[in-house]
Amino acid sequence: MTDTVGYCAAILTTLSFLPQAIKTIKTKDTSGISLLMYSMFTIGVFGWLVYGFLKRDIPVFVANLVTLSLAGIILTMKIKYK
Amino acid sequence: MTDTVGYCAAILTTLSFLPQAIKTIKTKDTSGISLLMYSMFTIGVFGWLVYGFLKRDIPVFVANLVTLSLAGIILTMKIKYK
Repeated sequence: MTDTVGYCAAILTTLSFLPQAIKTIKTKDTSGISLLMYSMFTIGVFGWLVYGFLKRDIPVFVANLVTLSLAGIILTMKIKYK
Repeated sequence: MTDTVGYCAAILTTLSFLPQAIKTIKTKDTSGISLLMYSMFTIGVFGWLVYGFLKRDIPVFVANLVTLSLAGIILTMKIKYK
C-alpha cells in the first residue's frame, strides 16, 4: 500500500516536469527559467537520489532518477542557450 | 548520515520553490505558470507527504509539507488571478 502511494506520487511529480522539458527542448527558450532555482533544484534532486539509494527506498530512487534527467536537460539547455 | 543527505536534499528542493512563490505573491502574475503542471505537482507532493508519513520518513515528510505549502500558494494564486 505504502509503495503504491509512493509510486503514484512519483508519477505525478515527475510527469509535471515533462511539459517544461518538452517546451524547453522544442523552443530552446529558457529566458523564463531561473538558473539559480534550477541549479539548486537539480543538486537537491541528486541529493534525494542518494538518499533513496542509501535508504533502499525504490519509489524515492526511481522518481528522483527520472526527475534528475528531466531537470538536467532543462538546466543544460539553460546554460547552453542563455 | 543518511538523514543528513535527506535534509540537505530537502532544503535544496524546497528552497528552489521559494523564488517562484515570492514572485507570484508579489506580482500576482501567473500567466507563465501551467495550471495542469502545478495541479499534478501539488497532488503529487501531497502523495509524497502521505508516503513519508506512512514510512515514518521524517526528511521526506517535512520536505513535502513545506513544498506543499509553497506549491499550494502558487496554485491558489493561479486559480484566483488567471
